[in-house]
Amino acid sequence: MNPARTPEPPYWAVIFTSTLNPEPHGYEEMAVAMVELAARQPGFLGFESARGADGLGVTVSYWASLEAVAAWKEVAAHQAAQRTGIERWYRAFVTRVARVERTTTFPPLARS
Amino acid sequence: MNPARTPEPPYWAVIFTSTLNPEPHGYEEMAVAMVELAARQPGFLGFESARGADGLGVTVSYWASLEAVAAWKEVAAHQAAQRTGIERWYRAFVTRVARVERTTTFPPLARS
Repeated sequence: MNPARTPEPPYWAVIFTSTLNPEPHGYEEMAVAMVELAARQPGFLGFESARGADGLGVTVSYWASLEAVAAWKEVAAHQAAQRTGIERWYRAFVTRVARVERTTTFPPLARS
Repeated sequence: MNPARTPEPPYWAVIFTSTLNPEPHGYEEMAVAMVELAARQPGFLGFESARGADGLGVTVSYWASLEAVAAWKEVAAHQAAQRTGIERWYRAFVTRVARVERTTTFPPLARS
């Protein structure tokens, strides 16, 4: 996976940081399905995710507008995944919604 | 590592996403030193980082103000690390500076 190629700011980032419970059955399948579903939503710009050996996962999705962020939050299958996550998979998480104001890219991108 | 315990928004996030060159000698030591140095800067609020098995790393640092973000960027040892990173360690990276507007925490935090 590479850093997401996003347009010039401003746009929005949803930073989702989590730790998992032991043996989170079904979590991986849900995560893959949610990325595929997010990528089909209006205003989706990109996605980056990593989970380290210590168990912390940091996932960032990028969106064209705050309306797109809000709409994604309301998608029924996403809401079901959020509920199951709270009930079963996540030990802890923080979701942060942030407005991206400036970016630096290496190697420098040739902007169209 | 757990999700960072940050104050109520607004505050700032620096989202740094990277891939590394093969055999990035000295990278791990630098990364540890930079976290310790960042944590001593004015306005530092917290830090989250993960690098997955596919090589993508997502690191987010949190700051009280845009001035604190700018000051950290200018710290001499940080600038040296950035230069060495571009010359030797990073295959690609994107740095995104974003203003955190809203958060959701699980389990819910008792705010003081």
